[in-house]
Amino acid sequence: MRHLLSVDDLTRADVDGLMELTDSFLEVSRREIAKVPALRGKTVVSLFYEDSTRTRISFETAAKRLSADTMTFGVKGSSHAKGESLRDTVQTIEAMGIDALVVRHQAAGAPHRVADWVDAAVCNAGDGRHEHPTQALLDMYTLRQHLGSLEGARVAIVGDVLNSRVARSDVKALDLLGAAVTLVAPPTLLPSSLAGWPVVVHHDLDDVLPELDVVILLRIQRERQDEGLFPSLREYALRYGLTAERAERLPEHALVMHPGPMNRGVEIDPDVADGPRSTITEQVANGVAVRMAVLFSLLGSGAPVAA
Amino acid sequence: MRHLLSVDDLTRADVDGLMELTDSFLEVSRREIAKVPALRGKTVVSLFYEDSTRTRISFETAAKRLSADTMTFGVKGSSHAKGESLRDTVQTIEAMGIDALVVRHQAAGAPHRVADWVDAAVCNAGDGRHEHPTQALLDMYTLRQHLGSLEGARVAIVGDVLNSRVARSDVKALDLLGAAVTLVAPPTLLPSSLAGWPVVVHHDLDDVLPELDVVILLRIQRERQDEGLFPSLREYALRYGLTAERAERLPEHALVMHPGPMNRGVEIDPDVADGPRSTITEQVANGVAVRMAVLFSLLGSGAPVAA
Amino acid sequence: MRHLLSVDDLTRADVDGLMELTDSFLEVSRREIAKVPALRGKTVVSLFYEDSTRTRISFETAAKRLSADTMTFGVKGSSHAKGESLRDTVQTIEAMGIDALVVRHQAAGAPHRVADWVDAAVCNAGDGRHEHPTQALLDMYTLRQHLGSLEGARVAIVGDVLNSRVARSDVKALDLLGAAVTLVAPPTLLPSSLAGWPVVVHHDLDDVLPELDVVILLRIQRERQDEGLFPSLREYALRYGLTAERAERLPEHALVMHPGPMNRGVEIDPDVADGPRSTITEQVANGVAVRMAVLFSLLGSGAPVAA
Repeated sequence: MRHLLSVDDLTRADVDGLMELTDSFLEVSRREIAKVPALRGKTVVSLFYEDSTRTRISFETAAKRLSADTMTFGVKGSSHAKGESLRDTVQTIEAMGIDALVVRHQAAGAPHRVADWVDAAVCNAGDGRHEHPTQALLDMYTLRQHLGSLEGARVAIVGDVLNSRVARSDVKALDLLGAAVTLVAPPTLLPSSLAGWPVVVHHDLDDVLPELDVVILLRIQRERQDEGLFPSLREYALRYGLTAERAERLPEHALVMHPGPMNRGVEIDPDVADGPRSTITEQVANGVAVRMAVLFSLLGSGAPVAA
Repeated sequence: MRHLLSVDDLTRADVDGLMELTDSFLEVSRREIAKVPALRGKTVVSLFYEDSTRTRISFETAAKRLSADTMTFGVKGSSHAKGESLRDTVQTIEAMGIDALVVRHQAAGAPHRVADWVDAAVCNAGDGRHEHPTQALLDMYTLRQHLGSLEGARVAIVGDVLNSRVARSDVKALDLLGAAVTLVAPPTLLPSSLAGWPVVVHHDLDDVLPELDVVILLRIQRERQDEGLFPSLREYALRYGLTAERAERLPEHALVMHPGPMNRGVEIDPDVADGPRSTITEQVANGVAVRMAVLFSLLGSGAPVAA
Repeated sequence: MRHLLSVDDLTRADVDGLMELTDSFLEVSRREIAKVPALRGKTVVSLFYEDSTRTRISFETAAKRLSADTMTFGVKGSSHAKGESLRDTVQTIEAMGIDALVVRHQAAGAPHRVADWVDAAVCNAGDGRHEHPTQALLDMYTLRQHLGSLEGARVAIVGDVLNSRVARSDVKALDLLGAAVTLVAPPTLLPSSLAGWPVVVHHDLDDVLPELDVVILLRIQRERQDEGLFPSLREYALRYGLTAERAERLPEHALVMHPGPMNRGVEIDPDVADGPRSTITEQVANGVAVRMAVLFSLLGSGAPVAA
């Protein structure tokens, strides 16, 4: 693996390999000294053009557990703010001898451009409304832990699909692994065309719930209300929020996922978020191990977890 | 020790134990390679909802000297800014496998809430007007270095007691170790009730000085003038500033402390700050070793300073 | 070497020594594990009063490759913002046991003041319009790689000399190593007096080009246009921008340098920046190794690159 830019780059065998690596790294995380020397002497730079402390810390924790050095290149105060092009910025960083760039950018496709310009490994940590492949991988890993296989699993993704890179990456990964995906959202929160998406669409959450193995809730950004995409957060919550009452319509074994950060009381009720179906905390914990697997696949050689 | 939230949590034996550890870690700081592997594989996150580069760097230096990995979670650009609750933020950080959270928050009691929500160790790095226990510990350590014992020591805390978490933590620690504390401030800078505080109050600094072993000066924030708590900084300095002239009224052995950052020319004159009685630089140096002792007590096992 | 504040502090032998160290550290950078334990247990703090992610990351990469611990002390949110003096800030940082301070400051001479106040090693990372000695060293190293010796080399520095610390440090270093320097700029972008500068001045770039071994282009800050120092960026580019056409007037062996970040299309055309004469990427790569050499000279002892 040279880069991780999109779920499209991955075969089922790639995903299986990454999941096996994740198993090993989860085991490392539980050790008394939760660290392996696998990437000693490597440098990983987080290049974040959009704020995300949560994702940045997950990647940096992963890199440090592999003994890599980490640095953050935020946009504020950078040469970008002085008018430097993205290309010059990334080629400068690479010239310093950086081995991997973890890129978050508001523009869809930015990490792909970066990968064209540098020899360093590039990992997409979220680009515009496009993709967030490590989130998809950690979601898949979490689902496999619970369901064994995703073959035939019935998964609904609920909410602001239009603006969600998590939705796009999850749909691709779920399809790759054999799950059947239903998108549930008001028409205003869906892309104008879903041609080519391997999904079915429903507008009524209550109808769909009894048939599901998994519900993935998407974060509703308060700004969307101002854009008139739905009447009000309260109205959204009434129709699409996963309340405790609504969650009871789910089969007993069904799981509830959320990529975080949550708007409790909007897309998910606190009782559900903290309830027994919720995998939200596991997703975060698995995220570090999945990112270790990705960084090791990009930069490592030899045995991943030699103690 | 599970957490360090308040000086109230500490017994005299706890303080003695931490001071002994501090002795060892000060010795480490003087080594050619000023580092021990005591917390290798542990991760310490600074969760700072209030800016304080000084305190953050002291904690991070301490963590790095113990070979822990460190990360900073600032509020700007974080999921907090996106509306996530403090509880969800800290549970997410913990889920990433973080071992300790060093929390600075503008709200009194916030670190206590955090400690209720996570299994990770929590260290209060200053909460509102409430407490700043590691500052108290480093002050006590510095005083013991000079005075041997604090039993019966006469200590004045001068200035904006009302708004000072350092004052609250120092009063408790001084009382625990047997010192007699006098608060010296204009009535507007004292809490409306001092019921239960083991202190006496004076409004005239000059009267008190000849009887003291130690003066702890508090930082006067310029904003307080605008709140009308005293007529002007100049006026404050005239009555409560420790000038060189005033410092001469102190017994020859008396010490002058300040938690920093100083407003030179307001609560302390430059000649006094840089003079022979001043322990200000020692306090900073001891701060790192004290924080190593605290982090080791929270996370360590085995011998602290095995070379 | 106690500090690196100015190129004035360096003899030719010092420069030779640093270049030899740089050779060794470049070799380290190419190793599978690009790291040596030379500064293990040392702490290097970046004290940046002016934003510069690029320079900060170069220094931090250098420090980490030497196994030093690094921390950033930005101004925002620091005690400086709370009114603390520079002197108190640096004495506080030093008291924490920091071994070296890498200082960037908008005021010329600030790092010199810092060096008066602390025992820690101080490295000037750019002070006002004054000096940027590590940039000069990396430029000299890059030139030596290409030219062997700088004795008699004909070098032009083109652009906003008035506001450029790079120009000041490069002029001194080039003169020390025996090169002949020509400044090329409109009169408004030159200092009012050049008394004592070992340079000749030209106002016409085209006249000078055929005689050069090296052109060093300086960044044109867009703000200068508003100050009325030249009519417009376009006008500046027309007379002083190194276009592909103009670059053809250079002797075939001549090199083109730029300290970055570039304004492509203003002081340099993309074709030239990315062309075969350009050393811009090499300068960045050499920068890390030069800074390793400087930090090792300030803090190290023993063999620099013991594997």
